[in-house]
Amino acid sequence: MAAQSFEALFGSIVADIDADMQAARAAQTPIAPILWEIIDYQFGWDLDDSAAARRVSGKKIRPLLMALVAQAIGGRYEHVLPAGTALEFIHNFTLIHDDVMDKSQERRHRPTVWTRWGAYQAINAGDGLYALGNLAVTRLEALGTPPARIVGVMRSLAQACLWTAEGQMLDMDFETRERVATADYITMVANKSATLIESAAYCGALLSTDDPAIVDAYARFGRSLGIAFQIRDDYLGVWGDEAVTGKSATSDIHEKKKSYPVLVAFEQADASDRAALDRIYGQETLSGADVEAVLAILARVDAAAQTDRIASEYYDAALAHLERTGIRGAAQDLIRQYAAFLVRRAY
Amino acid sequence: MAAQSFEALFGSIVADIDADMQAARAAQTPIAPILWEIIDYQFGWDLDDSAAARRVSGKKIRPLLMALVAQAIGGRYEHVLPAGTALEFIHNFTLIHDDVMDKSQERRHRPTVWTRWGAYQAINAGDGLYALGNLAVTRLEALGTPPARIVGVMRSLAQACLWTAEGQMLDMDFETRERVATADYITMVANKSATLIESAAYCGALLSTDDPAIVDAYARFGRSLGIAFQIRDDYLGVWGDEAVTGKSATSDIHEKKKSYPVLVAFEQADASDRAALDRIYGQETLSGADVEAVLAILARVDAAAQTDRIASEYYDAALAHLERTGIRGAAQDLIRQYAAFLVRRAY
Repeated sequence: MAAQSFEALFGSIVADIDADMQAARAAQTPIAPILWEIIDYQFGWDLDDSAAARRVSGKKIRPLLMALVAQAIGGRYEHVLPAGTALEFIHNFTLIHDDVMDKSQERRHRPTVWTRWGAYQAINAGDGLYALGNLAVTRLEALGTPPARIVGVMRSLAQACLWTAEGQMLDMDFETRERVATADYITMVANKSATLIESAAYCGALLSTDDPAIVDAYARFGRSLGIAFQIRDDYLGVWGDEAVTGKSATSDIHEKKKSYPVLVAFEQADASDRAALDRIYGQETLSGADVEAVLAILARVDAAAQTDRIASEYYDAALAHLERTGIRGAAQDLIRQYAAFLVRRAY
Repeated sequence: MAAQSFEALFGSIVADIDADMQAARAAQTPIAPILWEIIDYQFGWDLDDSAAARRVSGKKIRPLLMALVAQAIGGRYEHVLPAGTALEFIHNFTLIHDDVMDKSQERRHRPTVWTRWGAYQAINAGDGLYALGNLAVTRLEALGTPPARIVGVMRSLAQACLWTAEGQMLDMDFETRERVATADYITMVANKSATLIESAAYCGALLSTDDPAIVDAYARFGRSLGIAFQIRDDYLGVWGDEAVTGKSATSDIHEKKKSYPVLVAFEQADASDRAALDRIYGQETLSGADVEAVLAILARVDAAAQTDRIASEYYDAALAHLERTGIRGAAQDLIRQYAAFLVRRAY
């Protein structure tokens, strides 16, 4: 844990992002009240108590990264807020749809949208939120952003969304496969989880400099960081501290998620352990003894160290790209602290 | 029926649109093969036989309208094709999602996407297709379109998508309500069905003239036409000729759709007929006798004439807006023929 909390370092930027999101929402005249109820619920805008609202509104790590990059390059971030708002809307559209498909019951300490409004209205709300995200981008025009840059932001967001959808399709496809190579898994993660983070860094830079080398370096930083972030998530899903993460340790094993550590085990276990894994993962649900058996196999192939190593490799690559931007100063250091929060986190 | 067929009048434009759509698809490097299989299937690009492909690829009435408007204003339409491609991708994204929610088995003479790939991959494919549509818009840049106009196209498409999603949410909400006023139904239709047609006309004009009055008149034409088109669809769903429409006459009654004619009956039937309607529509499924009873009630309130009249009102309004554009000539006459095909059709 860093000396200063996430809230202390980034809370005021996150509050500015939230205010811009609310402004983008207020710019629309509601037609179907249910859409706006769902949107208000998703972002905690239905709650009067601001502490409670913060608890359910999410950390906004993508628009935050966009703002931090803009600040590092040009000392300010107000000019990127509509793009950050778009990205957060788009990210949440994917969450609402993913929760339907994963049958997830809870998101940010509250019931998921589909459990309250049904799967179909959740699909519609996700579609509407994606459209609202696209509309939010056009709000850059009112800030005097050159239209060619706005088109660049739109291209980046659309490409990231396409890749996110493809990553999600690969992920669902993997669930039904008997074997998934760790390399294919990384491809999936690089698309499903990293492209929106890459787009955040890219857009923050694109809206703040004309130097394509700087934009490219920040984009690569974002992509590597996004992959490291997801692998770290996989690590915490097996060996995380329940008291810190808020979800039970080994929860990913219980849910039979074929996350990175498990795929390492499938690839590297000896014949008898592999047979045991096949038997265990061939069942509908796992017993406590099954989970213990999987943990023992993970220990024998040292999956924890390998998972940690691959996350570190991507993290180091991210920091090298960050160095390559050539940007220096306190605001750039803040990006390093942000990256550490994402990948060195225990939560 | 007009003297010349739809195919004879518009076939070559539709072929150009299809070619641009395929170019937009080819510009992407596939990551999840399943997405591209679904897209090729949805547009008939999986079929070698071009006649068979045309049969399943749809009439592309939205990008066609965009091209016709561009041609009427400036004598050419090549400069709007990427926007037309975007619109057709976006329209099909909404169809793929709607088919999941309506549990529709068939679309353009083939099984729907969800029946072949499952509801979840259909949701993902729709999301991906929306993203591909957004990407397609940015292809306007390569044609030398001023970026400010590209942003204008994006705003129009995003707003139309938001309203389409809201219209779909209202539609689903109406299904569970006991009473829906015809006025509320028109609001739903104006959003769910007309906004993408409005956007087609708007974008065709925006990319072809700097005169905002012309752009506005074409947009209003599109909106009124879109409403008339849907009301005509409602008419054909009850009184259409099965041999021409390809779906059984009275199919909307069988499926308990609360389309415009049925809502007229609920509003205007006498007390005993209204009680009968309540009883009939309160059932899970309707018998042949129920359908006959509904048809008799529709006849007593003269719902056919009233449905025809409201469609004609919107159609006439559309033609008045078209007149207001001030554009004359053979290409503008072609738009009138197009409008007649949409609203005077028997299919």
